[in-house]
Amino acid sequence: MTYQNAQIIFDSYADGLPKVDNFTSGTETITQCDADKIIVRNHYLSVDPAQKGWMSSAVNYASATLGEAMRALAVGEIVESNLKDYQVGEFVTGWFGWQEYAHVGAEKIQRKVDPDMAPIKYAISIFGLNGLTAYIALKDIIAPKSDDTILVSTAAGGVGSIVGQLAREFGCHVIGLTGSDAKVERCCNEYGYDDAINYKSENWLKQLQQACPKGIDGYFDMTGGWITDNVIDLMNHSSVHAQVGTAAVASWDPVPVAPRRERVILVKEMTQKGFIIFNHEHRFEEASNFLAAMLEAETLNFRENIHQGLASAPTALESLYQGDNTGKVIISLLGQT
Amino acid sequence: MTYQNAQIIFDSYADGLPKVDNFTSGTETITQCDADKIIVRNHYLSVDPAQKGWMSSAVNYASATLGEAMRALAVGEIVESNLKDYQVGEFVTGWFGWQEYAHVGAEKIQRKVDPDMAPIKYAISIFGLNGLTAYIALKDIIAPKSDDTILVSTAAGGVGSIVGQLAREFGCHVIGLTGSDAKVERCCNEYGYDDAINYKSENWLKQLQQACPKGIDGYFDMTGGWITDNVIDLMNHSSVHAQVGTAAVASWDPVPVAPRRERVILVKEMTQKGFIIFNHEHRFEEASNFLAAMLEAETLNFRENIHQGLASAPTALESLYQGDNTGKVIISLLGQT
Repeated sequence: MTYQNAQIIFDSYADGLPKVDNFTSGTETITQCDADKIIVRNHYLSVDPAQKGWMSSAVNYASATLGEAMRALAVGEIVESNLKDYQVGEFVTGWFGWQEYAHVGAEKIQRKVDPDMAPIKYAISIFGLNGLTAYIALKDIIAPKSDDTILVSTAAGGVGSIVGQLAREFGCHVIGLTGSDAKVERCCNEYGYDDAINYKSENWLKQLQQACPKGIDGYFDMTGGWITDNVIDLMNHSSVHAQVGTAAVASWDPVPVAPRRERVILVKEMTQKGFIIFNHEHRFEEASNFLAAMLEAETLNFRENIHQGLASAPTALESLYQGDNTGKVIISLLGQT
Repeated sequence: MTYQNAQIIFDSYADGLPKVDNFTSGTETITQCDADKIIVRNHYLSVDPAQKGWMSSAVNYASATLGEAMRALAVGEIVESNLKDYQVGEFVTGWFGWQEYAHVGAEKIQRKVDPDMAPIKYAISIFGLNGLTAYIALKDIIAPKSDDTILVSTAAGGVGSIVGQLAREFGCHVIGLTGSDAKVERCCNEYGYDDAINYKSENWLKQLQQACPKGIDGYFDMTGGWITDNVIDLMNHSSVHAQVGTAAVASWDPVPVAPRRERVILVKEMTQKGFIIFNHEHRFEEASNFLAAMLEAETLNFRENIHQGLASAPTALESLYQGDNTGKVIISLLGQT
């Protein structure tokens, strides 16, 4: 069968924040399913903060390819298969890109998804990068103990909203930094935070200080930049700084300057450690099981922002860096919510 | 008995490099030994890179006190005692300062020293901060595996000269950065380094790259600053950066700027961790035993630079930051070598 495959093409590098202009629309004709490949009809596409890094001309852990459908996770149904372990009608999640159909080999498939267990979109949200990142980086890098003070920045997004609830589950005092008063409220009411602070408010640092009377033991940092430069002063001796994202730094080309940090790291005997989810596959099972148990026990809230239609993907990504999202951003291709 | 106690007084803060001018000479009269105190006649005084931090007006993990004898480790003989566990004639090491006599309570004493086991000066060199720092920071932070590439900066000083030999003992490929060609030679011939590079030579970074064909797995960093800014590029995924000193940064007031490092720490999933020897006392015994065994097996070389006389201490400290020393700097007060 032949497929007219509408795509959002990665058209130009974004060394600042990704813009709609970095993308074009295109259509590819898939005339057949090659040997050792499958054709997946995407149902949901993922929009992730990490895509900024993949769109940069600078060296990164992964890159999108210019002229191809934008690199993205997706979940969909197999419509043709020449791979022996995959059958038509099964659902799979993997690196299927911002497009209607993905004609891919096994190396792009992450795993099968059982639509009877949970909505398939969960594969790219709560059981996708967000939930896995939240659990594994918190558990393996910060390793929080009961009563530790944990700071999360930012707290109300796809990852942060889960980190707050996990840290509460681990018995921690959890504080969130986020970008609006509405999000502050959600952090406290829905995401398990003991307190949250709007980093756009004038005296945010003083508020943060008051919210962390015993200092900060673990910092789940997805922003870096000026926020982190200020937070460092509140961190305790032997505290841990997990560097999971750098959303507050608009561009790395050229590398911006920052207050030199060697001395404070030495004096406080702090640990700073980077985290990339793709290097922790051996931990996915424990993480998924833990999150599934919380879902079942109804102790895990999470939000999705579902945008309808392939064409909405570039706008959804651009607005992610304006802090407009209230949860995991997903593109729905078949009108489903 | 009365003692005329010649002292080197810490007279003014040094927010850049310590200078002779930051000190004055003085004499204190000790008229008696107070209850719960001892009087120690110092034999050897320690001169350490860390003293720069103690002389700063900025917040630090420890500080020297203006108007008092400069904070320093020393080793000497008890000449009077009102502490029940300490007898006249015994040798002790501790925070006895840059002075001929120390009139101190138990809180300033680190431990007794047996002059029959090894020269007592070893208590402030190989078995003192240097050896303990070398062993514990290498073992506990970097945790090197056989065949790892370990970089040490700087490599030929009191700590670095021991780190090189320990890393070789652990089966590592050990590379040193140091400040002169003569030191490069000593690193390779005496201190166990597979290769060493003079960071003052024009193409040092290219040389370093060639010396680390498989990148750097562990970085024992006592310099920080511009050296570290360059080294980071050669560090491997999952590598460890132990921040043990910051000698290459002349002043922290105001905090200087540096290339922002969040992104490279994230992308390489690097660990950076600070180290202060005083928080690791529970590890001193293992470290001392390991070093003593190497000394006994004659597999451990180390050098001392012994300066004669109390008055030489400020000059010895100032010249430490010029890189003039070839090993552990010690002040001898009684003419001993």
